[in-house]
Amino acid sequence: MVPTISASALRALCAAALVASAAPAYAYDELVEKQIFELEEFTTVGGETIRDVRIGWEAYGELNEARDNAILVTHFFSGNSNAAGRYEEDAAPGWWHEIIGPGKPVDTDRFYVIASDTLVNLGTGLPQVVTTGPATANPETGEPWGMDFPVVTIRDFVEVQRHLIDDIGIERLHAVMGPSMGALQVFEWASAYPDRVERAMPVIGSGWADANLIAWLNVWSAPIRLDPNWNEGDYYDADPPLQGLAEALKIVTLQSNHWKWANRTFGRDWAEEDADPLDDMDNRFAIEAVLDAAGAARAVTSDANHFLYLAKANQLFFAGHEEDHYQGLMAIEAPVLMIYSEDDLVFNKEAVRDTAAIIRSGGAEVELVEVTGGRGHLDGLLVIGHAGEQIRAFLDND
Amino acid sequence: MVPTISASALRALCAAALVASAAPAYAYDELVEKQIFELEEFTTVGGETIRDVRIGWEAYGELNEARDNAILVTHFFSGNSNAAGRYEEDAAPGWWHEIIGPGKPVDTDRFYVIASDTLVNLGTGLPQVVTTGPATANPETGEPWGMDFPVVTIRDFVEVQRHLIDDIGIERLHAVMGPSMGALQVFEWASAYPDRVERAMPVIGSGWADANLIAWLNVWSAPIRLDPNWNEGDYYDADPPLQGLAEALKIVTLQSNHWKWANRTFGRDWAEEDADPLDDMDNRFAIEAVLDAAGAARAVTSDANHFLYLAKANQLFFAGHEEDHYQGLMAIEAPVLMIYSEDDLVFNKEAVRDTAAIIRSGGAEVELVEVTGGRGHLDGLLVIGHAGEQIRAFLDND
Repeated sequence: MVPTISASALRALCAAALVASAAPAYAYDELVEKQIFELEEFTTVGGETIRDVRIGWEAYGELNEARDNAILVTHFFSGNSNAAGRYEEDAAPGWWHEIIGPGKPVDTDRFYVIASDTLVNLGTGLPQVVTTGPATANPETGEPWGMDFPVVTIRDFVEVQRHLIDDIGIERLHAVMGPSMGALQVFEWASAYPDRVERAMPVIGSGWADANLIAWLNVWSAPIRLDPNWNEGDYYDADPPLQGLAEALKIVTLQSNHWKWANRTFGRDWAEEDADPLDDMDNRFAIEAVLDAAGAARAVTSDANHFLYLAKANQLFFAGHEEDHYQGLMAIEAPVLMIYSEDDLVFNKEAVRDTAAIIRSGGAEVELVEVTGGRGHLDGLLVIGHAGEQIRAFLDND
Repeated sequence: MVPTISASALRALCAAALVASAAPAYAYDELVEKQIFELEEFTTVGGETIRDVRIGWEAYGELNEARDNAILVTHFFSGNSNAAGRYEEDAAPGWWHEIIGPGKPVDTDRFYVIASDTLVNLGTGLPQVVTTGPATANPETGEPWGMDFPVVTIRDFVEVQRHLIDDIGIERLHAVMGPSMGALQVFEWASAYPDRVERAMPVIGSGWADANLIAWLNVWSAPIRLDPNWNEGDYYDADPPLQGLAEALKIVTLQSNHWKWANRTFGRDWAEEDADPLDDMDNRFAIEAVLDAAGAARAVTSDANHFLYLAKANQLFFAGHEEDHYQGLMAIEAPVLMIYSEDDLVFNKEAVRDTAAIIRSGGAEVELVEVTGGRGHLDGLLVIGHAGEQIRAFLDND
């Protein structure tokens, strides 16, 4: 045994924190600016009213005069509206910067690319996030909503985006695209608004949350509820449940990866050279230390209640949100480019293939493209560039 | 959507609690009696001393005069020494009753089959378990050990069994066999005592804990440490951390299964007919309710500290426990029958195949047999009977 944490393990810490480590495939990334969209009143799918909704958004490229070159990008569970570009010269680029930018497959010299924060966005402590959720003050009371915030769904995320698109004056979207939870929003957009979506590109996602995903989302959430600091969601005047939230984010990180990654990167290395895990119950292996550190780091900028609401929104998802996911998926009319990983342990390949089959049975065209980066679910983020030419061609098709 | 919990979901509750629901393949199950093996002093792999070790064991069949017809059965993470037979006429049979008994593949008319509880066995509250661990009184203090109990390893489990076998007067074992954590004990037996193991049958397990398994064992354990009742392991005079332990067991149950099972059994059914999960953050889906109930039921008879020590023992495992798992596995001389599931999400198929390849490279024969029950890891328990004829033939071979 090599009893030490390796350089590769340290590199993986960064990767685990979802920062794509590959050099950008293109030389130039534009600077971007956060904008804020406000809605005086919003009614949820569940029939509840939320006043003073505020959502952050950003855009890359120029909207043309015909207003027909807009692409909407929808974000993943722990993602946000910084899908591409940088805030400052030195800042990390957005999470899909490999494919979005001037000359890139989603070419900002041609397209006006919009990305917005969802409701109950996880990253309440990040400067690039503006969202409305349990951590927001309820205008009725002036106090944070906490667990009194209405249950929201993926469809609600889409409805807020629809208001934003209406506000900008865009009637039809050239495409809607997004990974993971972003894919769920893509299915919902294409199903609910077939007249407004010309192309749909769901990545590493399926057309409904199956029992397996529902159960895992429950497991992800459980540590938060166990943390005594959670206090039934009432912690905004006290210490937040950082430990529970860190554990929750640790599970997300691990399950979003694949055992190939875990094993190749860490093996049975110890966290510290002189601390054999055999010698003490608290001595850890390298992969434990790296996942603990990644969870703790992400917890600091995240909100625990928002995590619970996001998990619920994902559990509640099925395309169309009316009868069942069959009806919802068969309502899709736009051509669909589905990008997935065979190694995905969050949205498994069978569910992805079933989704494609159901959409096809409704008459729409579906192209299924695999990406393979050895990172499981995260392949849809970290090696999305591998599908760059298929994405470019898909956006060019009439 | 069908907004109700289905009969199949209720049946699955039993299955989730690891009670094999299939009717026994054979008509007769013997009554068994628990015996207790005591060791005045035991020294762990880590060099620590444990006084007054007590371990439960049971046996099926008769030891012949030559004492060469003994088979040792080693148990899984949440299992115990009741591998076969029943305590009373109406009791549920042991967990491998499908293959162990008179006329069955592990034929108790021919073999003397021994099963023992491991150290730090999880089921401290079960009548069929006798174990020594954190919940046991430390003879030095008269108080439960708690987290002062020494770290123990799979090799320590095997050493206690070796003392038991010595005590019975058995020199060579006709076979050692076990599923999951039981497989780890099998590898260890065959590697450490090639002269005493004539056949090795590891089921749903690989020859080392890889980084992926190490990380998941950490995730399994985390809810216990988050439960304020855990109190650094000092809870034997107070309320035990049942909530954390229930969450831990919930994850074990889910990950030991496969998404095929989850999806076919539960779909998107609700836990209660009139409680749409959309209407309230606390309204659950059927699979959540069933997993919660299974976790809570199992927590009542389990000990949280024992769970942590078991998880640690599994993390620390690599065959041979000296140089590395290559050396350990190549030391195996006995023919090996490895039974596994392609759907296993705990010990993945690549690790199983690599294990077989390494053992073969050391010169031992390995036969690899797949079982397919749609239950993932649990296939090695629930449909082990599918491999019955291969097991019978393996035990017959000279």
